[in-house]
Amino acid sequence: MGVRFVERLGDAVLAGRSPACVGLDPRLDALPQGLAPGAPPPERIVAFYRETLPLLARHVPVVKPNIAFFEAFGAAGFAAYETTCRLARELGLLVVGDIKRGDIGSTAAAYAGLHLDLADAVTLQPYLGRDALEPFLLRCGEEGKAVFVLVATSNPGAAAIQDLRTPDGSVAEVVAGCVEAWGEGSCHAHGYASVGAVVGATRPDAIAALRRRMPHAWFLLPGVGAQGGRIDELEPAFDARGLGALVNQSRGVMQCFAPADADWRERIERAVLDFVDGLRRVSARPGGRS
Amino acid sequence: MGVRFVERLGDAVLAGRSPACVGLDPRLDALPQGLAPGAPPPERIVAFYRETLPLLARHVPVVKPNIAFFEAFGAAGFAAYETTCRLARELGLLVVGDIKRGDIGSTAAAYAGLHLDLADAVTLQPYLGRDALEPFLLRCGEEGKAVFVLVATSNPGAAAIQDLRTPDGSVAEVVAGCVEAWGEGSCHAHGYASVGAVVGATRPDAIAALRRRMPHAWFLLPGVGAQGGRIDELEPAFDARGLGALVNQSRGVMQCFAPADADWRERIERAVLDFVDGLRRVSARPGGRS
Repeated sequence: MGVRFVERLGDAVLAGRSPACVGLDPRLDALPQGLAPGAPPPERIVAFYRETLPLLARHVPVVKPNIAFFEAFGAAGFAAYETTCRLARELGLLVVGDIKRGDIGSTAAAYAGLHLDLADAVTLQPYLGRDALEPFLLRCGEEGKAVFVLVATSNPGAAAIQDLRTPDGSVAEVVAGCVEAWGEGSCHAHGYASVGAVVGATRPDAIAALRRRMPHAWFLLPGVGAQGGRIDELEPAFDARGLGALVNQSRGVMQCFAPADADWRERIERAVLDFVDGLRRVSARPGGRS
Repeated sequence: MGVRFVERLGDAVLAGRSPACVGLDPRLDALPQGLAPGAPPPERIVAFYRETLPLLARHVPVVKPNIAFFEAFGAAGFAAYETTCRLARELGLLVVGDIKRGDIGSTAAAYAGLHLDLADAVTLQPYLGRDALEPFLLRCGEEGKAVFVLVATSNPGAAAIQDLRTPDGSVAEVVAGCVEAWGEGSCHAHGYASVGAVVGATRPDAIAALRRRMPHAWFLLPGVGAQGGRIDELEPAFDARGLGALVNQSRGVMQCFAPADADWRERIERAVLDFVDGLRRVSARPGGRS
C-alpha cells in the first residue's frame, strides 16, 4: 500500500510527536557560510539539508520543501529538490512537496506522475476545479498519497478572491466544501481523509468556520512566525486528540542564524525545539471538538 | 527595454501574421519514431523541437511550452524546457511559458526570477490574489514582459469555482476585473496592457462578458481542437484590427501524425497552415468592438 500519509502522520502525533512541519525554502544568502562555500548553489543547498535533515527527523514528522526556491536555480536546482526529497524520505520524514501546481487533463497527470513519486504529499491550486486534482486524487485513493489544496492563504491580497461572498459563503468556504467532497474516495485514517487544506495561520478567525466545512481534512497551517501567525491562536484547528492540524514554520527555524554563525547547528536545534514544544502545548489542550 | 511582449505581438499581427500560438506539450508516445530513437527522453524532446521550431517560426509568432510535460522527466526534463525556450527565442519566436505558478512573497519572486528570464511571458494562477503576481508585474512594467492570468479555463470542473456567483458577477468576472486593474502599471502597446488573461476557447459564451471587464487585456485562448473549441466562435475576442486575442493549438498541430509516419514534418506544416489560415479568416473579420 505504500505511503498512507494521514495514517503515518496521525500515528506520529498520537505517539507524542509534535504536529510540526519544517519548511525548506533555501536561500543562498541564508546558508551557513562555512558549508561548501565554493560549490555551485544547488550543491550548497543539498549540503545544507544533508546536515540538517537528520536533526529535523529527530524532532518533527514532516518537512515541506518549497520547489520554487530550488527551481529558481534552473535544472540543477530542480535536481537539488529531487535529492532533498529523497534524503528526507530515507530518514523517515514525511515530505509535503510545496509545488502549488494546478493544471488539467493530461497536464495534471504529468505533474502527478513526477511529484507524487518524489514526495508523499503535495500542495495544489483549486482554481481549475476537480479536474486539476483528479490524477492526484487517484493516488490518494490507491496509495494513500495526500494533497493539501489551497483554501485560505496567509497573504493580504488573498482576500480579493478568497473572501468574495457567494450564496453559499465565501469562495474559501466553498472551496473548503469541495475539499471535503474530494476527500471522500481517498484513504482515511484516524477520521481524516487524504485530501487536506492549506489554511493560513495568520487567519485564526477563519479556522473554526473552515473546520465546520471540512471535518475530515488535515489543515496545513503556514504563516507562523515571520508572517505573523501565532501558534497559541491555532487551537481551534486541532481535535481533542491533537490531530487534524499540521503547523509549518520555515524561516523561524531554518533561517534562525546569521550566515557567519559557527554554531548554526545548535541554533537550528534550539529553534526546532522551541517550535515543537510551543506547538505541543497548544495541540495537547482539548480542542473545540472531539 | 528588452522584450515588450504585447508590442511585438501586436506588430506581428498588424503586419499580417496570424494571431496563432502553438502549444508544446511533449509526449514520448507522440514523437516521431525515427528521431533520436535511442536517446533519453529529454534529448528526444529537444531533438523534436530543434527540428520543428524553425518551421513554426515561419508561420506563427508565439509558442507556448507547457512545463508540466518537461518537468515530468525530472531535472533533465526541466533542462529540456530551458533549452526549448532558448531555441525558440533565438528564432525570434515569442515564448509564453505555460507554468501556471502561483505563490506569495519571496516565493513568487523566486519563480519570477527564473521564469521570466527563460520566457517572454508566463501563465499564472489568480487564487492568491495580487501578491502572487507582484514580482511578475514589476517586470511587466520595467521590461514589457507579460503574464496571462487564468480567468476562465476550458475544463468542465472549472465551473465549481469560476462560475460561483458573487455580488459583482461570477468569480471569473471578478478575476477579470482584477486582471484589468493589475495591467494598469504595465507596458502598453496598441491599446493593450502587458497583463492578459487565459480564457478557454471552449466557452465562447463567456468571451463577450469577459471582454467588457478586460478591455485592455490580450486573451490567450487554449482549447481549440482536441478540447472542442471552435475557431469560428472566437470572433468576439478580437478587436476590429484583429488584435487582442491569441489562439493556442497544441495537439492538433504537434501531434497530427502517427509516430511511424515518415512525412511528419510535412504533416505538421500542413496542420500549422490550416490553423493559421482558419484563424486569419476569423481575426480579420471586423470584430464586435473597434
